[in-house]
Amino acid sequence: MENSLGKLFTVTSFGESHGQCLGAVIDGSPAGLAITKDDIQQELDQRKPDSAITSTERAELDRVEILSGISDGITTGAPICLIIWNRDVDSTEYERARFLPRPSHADYPAFVKYGGFNDFRGGGRFSGRLTAVSVMGGAIAKKILKLVNIEIIAHTINIGGITAASKGISEIKQNRPQNPLKCADPEVAGEMAKLIEAAKQQGDSLGGIIEGIAINVPVGLGEPVFGRLDSELAKALFAIPAVKGVEFGAGFSAANKRGSQNNDPIALKDSNIVTTTNNAGGILGGISNGMPIVVRVAVKPTASITEYQSTVNMKTLKSARLTIKGRHDACIVPRAVVVVESMMAITLTDLAMRAGFIPRVIK
Amino acid sequence: MENSLGKLFTVTSFGESHGQCLGAVIDGSPAGLAITKDDIQQELDQRKPDSAITSTERAELDRVEILSGISDGITTGAPICLIIWNRDVDSTEYERARFLPRPSHADYPAFVKYGGFNDFRGGGRFSGRLTAVSVMGGAIAKKILKLVNIEIIAHTINIGGITAASKGISEIKQNRPQNPLKCADPEVAGEMAKLIEAAKQQGDSLGGIIEGIAINVPVGLGEPVFGRLDSELAKALFAIPAVKGVEFGAGFSAANKRGSQNNDPIALKDSNIVTTTNNAGGILGGISNGMPIVVRVAVKPTASITEYQSTVNMKTLKSARLTIKGRHDACIVPRAVVVVESMMAITLTDLAMRAGFIPRVIK
Amino acid sequence: MENSLGKLFTVTSFGESHGQCLGAVIDGSPAGLAITKDDIQQELDQRKPDSAITSTERAELDRVEILSGISDGITTGAPICLIIWNRDVDSTEYERARFLPRPSHADYPAFVKYGGFNDFRGGGRFSGRLTAVSVMGGAIAKKILKLVNIEIIAHTINIGGITAASKGISEIKQNRPQNPLKCADPEVAGEMAKLIEAAKQQGDSLGGIIEGIAINVPVGLGEPVFGRLDSELAKALFAIPAVKGVEFGAGFSAANKRGSQNNDPIALKDSNIVTTTNNAGGILGGISNGMPIVVRVAVKPTASITEYQSTVNMKTLKSARLTIKGRHDACIVPRAVVVVESMMAITLTDLAMRAGFIPRVIK
Amino acid sequence: MENSLGKLFTVTSFGESHGQCLGAVIDGSPAGLAITKDDIQQELDQRKPDSAITSTERAELDRVEILSGISDGITTGAPICLIIWNRDVDSTEYERARFLPRPSHADYPAFVKYGGFNDFRGGGRFSGRLTAVSVMGGAIAKKILKLVNIEIIAHTINIGGITAASKGISEIKQNRPQNPLKCADPEVAGEMAKLIEAAKQQGDSLGGIIEGIAINVPVGLGEPVFGRLDSELAKALFAIPAVKGVEFGAGFSAANKRGSQNNDPIALKDSNIVTTTNNAGGILGGISNGMPIVVRVAVKPTASITEYQSTVNMKTLKSARLTIKGRHDACIVPRAVVVVESMMAITLTDLAMRAGFIPRVIK
Repeated sequence: MENSLGKLFTVTSFGESHGQCLGAVIDGSPAGLAITKDDIQQELDQRKPDSAITSTERAELDRVEILSGISDGITTGAPICLIIWNRDVDSTEYERARFLPRPSHADYPAFVKYGGFNDFRGGGRFSGRLTAVSVMGGAIAKKILKLVNIEIIAHTINIGGITAASKGISEIKQNRPQNPLKCADPEVAGEMAKLIEAAKQQGDSLGGIIEGIAINVPVGLGEPVFGRLDSELAKALFAIPAVKGVEFGAGFSAANKRGSQNNDPIALKDSNIVTTTNNAGGILGGISNGMPIVVRVAVKPTASITEYQSTVNMKTLKSARLTIKGRHDACIVPRAVVVVESMMAITLTDLAMRAGFIPRVIK
Repeated sequence: MENSLGKLFTVTSFGESHGQCLGAVIDGSPAGLAITKDDIQQELDQRKPDSAITSTERAELDRVEILSGISDGITTGAPICLIIWNRDVDSTEYERARFLPRPSHADYPAFVKYGGFNDFRGGGRFSGRLTAVSVMGGAIAKKILKLVNIEIIAHTINIGGITAASKGISEIKQNRPQNPLKCADPEVAGEMAKLIEAAKQQGDSLGGIIEGIAINVPVGLGEPVFGRLDSELAKALFAIPAVKGVEFGAGFSAANKRGSQNNDPIALKDSNIVTTTNNAGGILGGISNGMPIVVRVAVKPTASITEYQSTVNMKTLKSARLTIKGRHDACIVPRAVVVVESMMAITLTDLAMRAGFIPRVIK
Repeated sequence: MENSLGKLFTVTSFGESHGQCLGAVIDGSPAGLAITKDDIQQELDQRKPDSAITSTERAELDRVEILSGISDGITTGAPICLIIWNRDVDSTEYERARFLPRPSHADYPAFVKYGGFNDFRGGGRFSGRLTAVSVMGGAIAKKILKLVNIEIIAHTINIGGITAASKGISEIKQNRPQNPLKCADPEVAGEMAKLIEAAKQQGDSLGGIIEGIAINVPVGLGEPVFGRLDSELAKALFAIPAVKGVEFGAGFSAANKRGSQNNDPIALKDSNIVTTTNNAGGILGGISNGMPIVVRVAVKPTASITEYQSTVNMKTLKSARLTIKGRHDACIVPRAVVVVESMMAITLTDLAMRAGFIPRVIK
Repeated sequence: MENSLGKLFTVTSFGESHGQCLGAVIDGSPAGLAITKDDIQQELDQRKPDSAITSTERAELDRVEILSGISDGITTGAPICLIIWNRDVDSTEYERARFLPRPSHADYPAFVKYGGFNDFRGGGRFSGRLTAVSVMGGAIAKKILKLVNIEIIAHTINIGGITAASKGISEIKQNRPQNPLKCADPEVAGEMAKLIEAAKQQGDSLGGIIEGIAINVPVGLGEPVFGRLDSELAKALFAIPAVKGVEFGAGFSAANKRGSQNNDPIALKDSNIVTTTNNAGGILGGISNGMPIVVRVAVKPTASITEYQSTVNMKTLKSARLTIKGRHDACIVPRAVVVVESMMAITLTDLAMRAGFIPRVIK
C-alpha cells in the first residue's frame, strides 16, 4: 500500500517475482535528458549473478523495455515506465509449500497482512528480484546526478565476517568493476569467494556489509528536521530486502569514541571548507556538508537454505519441517551492491531536486 | 523545508532552541482519547537531565502547554498544538562565535543551506532541545498505542564502550525507570556514570547505544515495498540529532552469521505462530511479524567539548581555533532514551493507522 | 511531475496518446477483491465513441491488460498495473505542425514547461485519451466502493446550451445506460444529437455539463480542513482535460439565493437524520452528510476544430494560420461521463479508506 | 486529519474558533525574506468586518504574533508559526443548542465523524474564523510571489444576484481597496450594500461571487496530470467554508459556447506569445499559459440566520425547531475576498516552488 518512493523524484514499483513482469514508473525526471535502453540495461546487468563465482544458478535475463517518457533517447518530462518481462519461472515448489512459511522470509507476516491473497510464488512482492525495479529507477537517477557531477559507488567490504582492507575512493573505482564480488580488495575477495563456495556446498548462506559512497555532493542536500539526508537515505536503504542495519560515517563505532576523537576538525582546502576526517560520513544535522557521503549497510545471510528448518503450517497450525529447494544465491551481497547505489541515487536525486539543484529542463 | 513526519498521524515541528518556544502540531489523533497535560509532562520530564548524574548543568524547565485539539482532557479530532515556552536563554556565546562553525555540529552546512539567515543561537533548529518536540508527539502516540496494547520501552545499553548485560523485557521494565542512566543493568550503569564524570572533568564527551523495544505489536504493521516498518522507523530515528547508526534484531552482526544461525525457527506458542529466536527484530519483509520490535541506535559523543578545536571562519575563510563554553551534556545518551521511544511511538502509530488498527473515534 | 492521485488509494498514470501504451498503477486496493478484465473493459467501453451518434470517427479499440496485482481474478494487495497498448496511430499531422500551438490546447505552455522535449504527437500527455487511465483506476475504485454499497452515476445534463429536464436518481439509472449521449432525458438527448451533428458539419464543436451523483455515501467522508471531500473531488475533476468549472449542490446558483432559501432543513426519515432539500450537494464542512453527493462539471467545447485559427510559430515567432485535420469529437461530453464517474470513484475510495470505512482484506 | 496544505510550501492549521488560539505553521519559505508582523496584520485586517457596512457585529481584533521562523524581520528558513490569541468569546449559545445541528452548517456530519467529541463552540474547526489561518499563510505566500513579480487581487463581483460591471485589472486595483464590499464597481456596490442591509433586517443572509486574478504568472506553473494548476487551485478554494463552486476563465458559460467562440486565438504581443481572449482563464492543460489566471468562486449565503429552522436533536432523535442568535454576518462575501487571494497565493507559491521558480535563499 505504499509502493512509491520520493517526493519530487518518485519511483513507483509494480510487478511480482513470478508474475508477468516487474515495472517501475519514474516521475519527476527533467525533460531533455539523454538516456538509452543500454544505460539502464548496464545497471541491471550489475545485478546479474556473476558466472565467475558460484553465488547463483538461476539464468536470469532481465531485459529492460522503455514503455513511456523517453522519446528518441531523450526524456520528455512525462513519467518513464520501464518494464522487465518475466521468464524462466517455475512456481511448483512454492505451490507445494504454500502454507509453510519459510523462516526469516516475509511469508508469515505477508500471509496475515494480505489475508493469504498475496502472490506467494517466488516470494511475490518480497522477492529479491524486486530490487530490479529500484535499479531501473537508480539508472535514471544516476543520469540526473551526473548533471551536477554527483557520482555514487558502492562496494563489498565484508562477507561472512571476512573484511576487506580500507581503500581510497580512486582505488575503489578502479578495482571494484573488475571484481566479481564487487570488492575493491582483490586478495580478500578471493577468500570471500571461497567462503561462499563452502557455504554453498553445505546448503548454507552468508551475509555481509556493503559500503556506499557519494562524491561531489554539494553542501545543502537534506531537509531538516524530518526530511534529513540520513533519514531519507536510511528509509530507502532499508527498503532493500535483507538489510538489517544502516550506519553513516563512524556509525556504531562512534558510540565507543570520545568527542575529541569523533569530532571532525574543520579546515580549508583549495579555498573550500572541509573536514580533515569524515566521521560524520558527509552529513551534519541531516544536511550534506560537502564531504563524501559514506554509508554502510548490513545484509543478513540469504534466508533460503537447503537444510531442514522448523516451521508451522499456517492453515492447520501444525508444526512442520521444511527444506527449501530451488536455485538460490548462497550470498546476495555482490548482487546487492548496485541496489545500494540505486537507492542512494534515487534519494540524492529527490533531495537535490527539493534543494533546487536540478533544472526542470536540460538545455 | 520538511518539518512534518508521518502520513495519517503527523507531527509538525516548529520553534528554535533560543527562540520564543518549541512547538508541535499533532494531526490525526482519534477523537475521544483521554490525555492530560500531566501525561505529556511526564514524558518531557524523562528528557530532563538527572541531577543524580552529572550529564548536564542547564536548569531546563520544559513545561508543556496545550493550545488546541484537547478539550476537557479529551482529544477532539482536531490538530493538537503543544508548546513549550523557552526561558533561561543566554545567546551571547553564540553571537560571539557566529561565523566559526563548531566541528561535528550542523553550523557549516546550515549556514550554506540557509544563506546565513538561519537562527544559529543555541544551534537553532539543530539543537538537541528540538527533540522535546518529538517527545510531545510521542506522548500522544503512546496514548494511542495503548488502545491496541502496544508498549514501547527503550534503555541505554552502551556508554563510551561500556556495555550493559543483556536483560529480559520484564527486567528492563523494572530496572530502567529507577536508573538515572536509563540502563537496565544497575551495576554497569555505575561504571558508565563514572566514565561520564571522568569525560566531563576532561571537557570531553561520550556516545553510546540505545535499544528500543516495542511489544504486543500485531502482525501486519508496515507498508511494503517503500513504506516498510524498518524504513519508516529508521527514517524517524535518524531524525534524532547525533544518531549515526540504526539496526534491527541481529543488525550488523547478521553480516557475520550463516543463514542457519541467523534464521529464526518458526514454532507454535499458545496457538500463536512465533519464532524461537528474534534475529529479525520483529520485522520480516518490512512487516511486523508479532515478535518484539528490537532496534538499536548509535549515538555519537556530544559534539560540544571544551578543548580547543580547529575550524574556519565562514566569512573571512581564515583558519581559527574554537573552544566551546557553556553548559553541555558530556553524554546525552540517557536523555535520548525517551526520544527513541517517542520516534518509535510516532512511527508505529502512523503505521497502525495506515494498517487500519486504530479507530477514528474512541468510544 | 505529479502523476499520482490519492493518499491511501493512489492512481499513477503513465503513457502517451501516440506512444506505445497508456498505463495505470493502482496502489492501495484491499486484498481479496474479485475483479476481472471484463469489469475494467466494461468501464473503458463507456469511453468509446458511440456509433449511433456522430461524435467521433477514430476507431479506438482500447483493450485493457492486467500486468500485476490481480491473480486468478482476485486482488493480491500488490499494486495493480493495467495497460492499454496503443494502435491506429498516425502522427504525421502533428509532426507537420509541431511548432504551431493549437488554440486552447496545452501545446504552448507544455512546449515552454518541457523545453520542447514533450511528446507532442496526439497531444502527448495532454490528450483526452489519457482519461482512459483514470477510467481504469475508476474501475477498481468502483469495485471497492461496492463493498460499502456506494454507487456512482453521472449523466449529461447540457450540451451546447440544450439542457435536460431534471430527473430522479432511479430514472437516471434507468435511462442513461441506453442513451448514446448518456443523457437521462431521451427527448432532449435527441435535440442534443442534432446539435452535435450540425456543429460537426460546420467543423465546429460543442461543450456541455455533466452531473455526477454518488449515493449511499456514509456520513463522515472528507478530512477537514484541507482534505475536504469537496476539495479532493474538485482536484480530481479538474484533472479531466476540458473541465473549466465544478460546483456542488446549488453551486453557483447559491450566490443568488438567501440563506432561508438555500439552507437545507434537517429532518428525520426512517430514524435517520436527513435534509429535506440538498442544496449542499451532500457535503457540509467538507464532510459527507449522508445525502447524495451531487456535483456538476462544465466541459468546454472541443478545442480541435477544422476552421482556420490564428497562432504563432513557437520557433520563428511568426504569426501563422492553422487548420486542424484528423478525426476529432465534435463533442466529448458523452464520452467524458464515465471519466467523471471514475474521478469521483477514485476520490471517494481514497477518502473512504482514510476515514476507516474500507477493510484492508476482503474476507 | 488533514490539516496541511501544499507540497513544498505548506500551511498547517491548528486552533478552534472559541478555543485559545488560531495558528498556522508555514513551512518551505525561502530564507532571507523580509517580512514584518505588520505585513501579516495588514492582510488579516482585510478580513475584518467593515464598520462602514453592516455585514457583521462581532468586534474581532485578530492580532497576529510571530512565534518562530522569522528573526529580526527576516525569514530564517525554519517553519514560521503565526498565532492569533482568541478573545471576546461567548459560547453559552452553543452549549445550549449542542445537540441541535444548525441547517447547512457542519454540525451534524462533524458530530458523527468525531463521535461528538469535536469542539462545537463557535463551530470549532468549521467556523469561518478559521480562514484567518489561511490569510496568515497567504500573507507569507504573497511576499514570496512578489519575488517573481506575481500579484494577486480578488474582488466581489456578485452579491445576492446583483452583479458588478466587468472591469479591467487596473480599475480593479484602483477601486477595490477603497470599497467596503471589495467591489470594483462603486455604483453597484452601493446597491449590494442596501441588499445586505435589507437581508440583515429580515434576519436573513446573502451569498455572492468572488473573482480572483493573478497577474504576471510565468508560463509553466502546474504539474500535470494530477498536480495541475486548476486542480490545486480548486482544492485550495473549496477549503474556504461556504464555497460551492469554482470556475476558471469562461467556466460554466463555456458549456454553451462553440469551439470557434471559446478558443482563444494565439498572437504575438511585444515578442511574447499571448492569446487575444482569455476564456482559458490563464490555464491550459493544467499549466499556466502566461495570461492572467482568472477564477470565480461561488459563496453560499451565510447559514446562520435568525428565523426558525427545522432540525433534529442528535441525541434524542426528536424533531426540533432552532433559532440562531448571536452576531453573524448577513453576507460574508466581502470578508472572504482576502481569503480567496490567500488560497490562490498559497497554491501559486507551492507550484512556483515545485516548478523551480523560487530560490531557496533570498540574496
